[in-house]
Amino acid sequence: MRDVSIIGVGQTPVGEHWAHSLRDLGVEATRAALADAGLERPDALFVGNMVSGLLCQQENLATLLADFSGFPGIEALKIEAACASGAAAVRVAQLAVASGAHDLVVAVGIEKMTDLAIDGVTSALATAADADYEAAHGVTFTALNALLMRLYMERYGYTRADFAPFVITAHENAVTNPYAMFRETVTPEDFLNSPMVAEPISILDSSPVCDGAAAVVLCPSDRARSFTEQPVKILASATATDTIGLAPRKDLLWFGAAYESAHRAYRQTGLRPEEVDFFELHDAFTIVSALSLEAACFAERGQGVRFAQECHIHRNGKLPICTQGGLKARGHPVGASGAYQIVEAVNQLRGHGGPNQVANCRVGMAQSIGGMASVAVTHILGV
Amino acid sequence: MRDVSIIGVGQTPVGEHWAHSLRDLGVEATRAALADAGLERPDALFVGNMVSGLLCQQENLATLLADFSGFPGIEALKIEAACASGAAAVRVAQLAVASGAHDLVVAVGIEKMTDLAIDGVTSALATAADADYEAAHGVTFTALNALLMRLYMERYGYTRADFAPFVITAHENAVTNPYAMFRETVTPEDFLNSPMVAEPISILDSSPVCDGAAAVVLCPSDRARSFTEQPVKILASATATDTIGLAPRKDLLWFGAAYESAHRAYRQTGLRPEEVDFFELHDAFTIVSALSLEAACFAERGQGVRFAQECHIHRNGKLPICTQGGLKARGHPVGASGAYQIVEAVNQLRGHGGPNQVANCRVGMAQSIGGMASVAVTHILGV
Repeated sequence: MRDVSIIGVGQTPVGEHWAHSLRDLGVEATRAALADAGLERPDALFVGNMVSGLLCQQENLATLLADFSGFPGIEALKIEAACASGAAAVRVAQLAVASGAHDLVVAVGIEKMTDLAIDGVTSALATAADADYEAAHGVTFTALNALLMRLYMERYGYTRADFAPFVITAHENAVTNPYAMFRETVTPEDFLNSPMVAEPISILDSSPVCDGAAAVVLCPSDRARSFTEQPVKILASATATDTIGLAPRKDLLWFGAAYESAHRAYRQTGLRPEEVDFFELHDAFTIVSALSLEAACFAERGQGVRFAQECHIHRNGKLPICTQGGLKARGHPVGASGAYQIVEAVNQLRGHGGPNQVANCRVGMAQSIGGMASVAVTHILGV
Repeated sequence: MRDVSIIGVGQTPVGEHWAHSLRDLGVEATRAALADAGLERPDALFVGNMVSGLLCQQENLATLLADFSGFPGIEALKIEAACASGAAAVRVAQLAVASGAHDLVVAVGIEKMTDLAIDGVTSALATAADADYEAAHGVTFTALNALLMRLYMERYGYTRADFAPFVITAHENAVTNPYAMFRETVTPEDFLNSPMVAEPISILDSSPVCDGAAAVVLCPSDRARSFTEQPVKILASATATDTIGLAPRKDLLWFGAAYESAHRAYRQTGLRPEEVDFFELHDAFTIVSALSLEAACFAERGQGVRFAQECHIHRNGKLPICTQGGLKARGHPVGASGAYQIVEAVNQLRGHGGPNQVANCRVGMAQSIGGMASVAVTHILGV
């Protein structure tokens, strides 16, 4: 198995891109990543996307992007793992390079969500749940996460206000990120007064519907320095799943897929959680942040919220998270988010973190979650 | 790069499965392939599927199938390459085993198309075309292929009747395949009198809308004989793309992606076309069969139809095609078809071809095509 490194990254701003199509965004991120690597044409392209069929009437998306990025002919496939699709595309790209099948591979995550009315988007996102046994009853992801948040509050004795630090930190970090959707701070009062979506989840507990694309270029580690002086090594890449539905789980507050994929990643590297310098986690809702910190073994069970309250997640804390705004404030174009996390982790490890640079970081973890944490893809990157 | 072999295959009958859901079909094929390999639980599952989001409101499909097949926890991702999705899943499974990331991997192709009215299905299939520049004008795949067939007839001097051998052979081969949808022969008169869909394409030039799933189990070749006495080696696995739209192509009658993927496969093996004993090709329409034979270098330009008329494609001919009925008569559950082809090729190479066994075969090619031949995945298998 060949070692694999990232030699280029690219991203579009996240937002409501009324003037840019699905293809525009994908091409922009792909070409930016290639330019960063000093490359004209890759050998293969893996596209992470969740719902372009439902929201843009476009499947065969990888072929489209290879064509319009300027290199029809290459191998190109789309990878889907619900909201973890962008990270899953990086995973498959890593397999392609590790195997020796390809040397120069682009993974791009992309989603265009704002071409449809919001109820259509909510229905499209619900396809990540079990269509027959969950979505058919009208349950949305906000509702499912609200069940978890309520249970978490009751079991561990928290109030809604206790979740505020996740949101405040994410927005604070987004202010100086030119690619972020919400570049403004929020106060504890803003958080407490924000309108309810599905109690106890308010609009400010939730990540936004938006558009964006992010891409990385991979190559064998032993060739990486011929492209860039700052390659970043993929130390681990691991996917795991759980039951797709919530009902069969023994413990609703345990993210088994997130735990398992993090642990496979730890095993691949020999690293322990305390050796990870920052964590790009999947803050689709505040409750997901708390449970992710616990599943990846950064906080004890029931202590994810306390971990945030104790300021460990700040950019100068012991485990900075969502260093460029996270899903909450950078934005969550679903099939792209996993790729954004990896782009941001690479930027940190290269010292390109800007005002949010994590000091002296050498190891970063990015974890992307799909469905009700029914699938998780974890990468550990290092320099 | 580790050599990879197939150690088990499974399939459901193809048809209109009113009583079976998307998940039922996927689980049935997956468990059949595992049973054939004598395995309980694989390390990873790659699911080929094109339109479960649009037709069944189900994404996150790989997680669903891992869960309901009895092994939540494993790595599971969905792969999409339009109608070539099933073959693309085998391609990614091959990368996963070749890389050393996994030892025991299932690739399953699956599609459930009959839960929706036919106009909905036609629209869903049109998502494999360029949504903005082709599908938006109302062009369907039957219409696009009709353009090609008309041009082919005019350029090379054929009539509609000349295409009959593809259909007659496919149906003949399906008669004895218990998994085929149309187990009846058709005559040249049936073909000539069949109703037009988009002139010159008639209903009998076209493959049917249907449901089905097919699966294979892969492992490193050096472990294959511990699972089965009849492993089949993946000698080559290659994907290529072309422009997604027809308009920009220099020659509408040249399947560049099919040519390129076949040639990458030939190069991986060192084999020449005349060393291939049979060819599971993508007969979505009769014109696609003709152009596939030419792109894979089994027939000269303009001679694909003549090749069929000269009976070379019969089960005793020099290049049997669609040996179990092909897309036309076994059926074409789009995201599953590429996996069916590989299951059928494995059966031939194991001597399990039944009444349609190709004598003394040692090398078989399976080629799956997506969109307007904008993507193609070619496998060469051997014993």
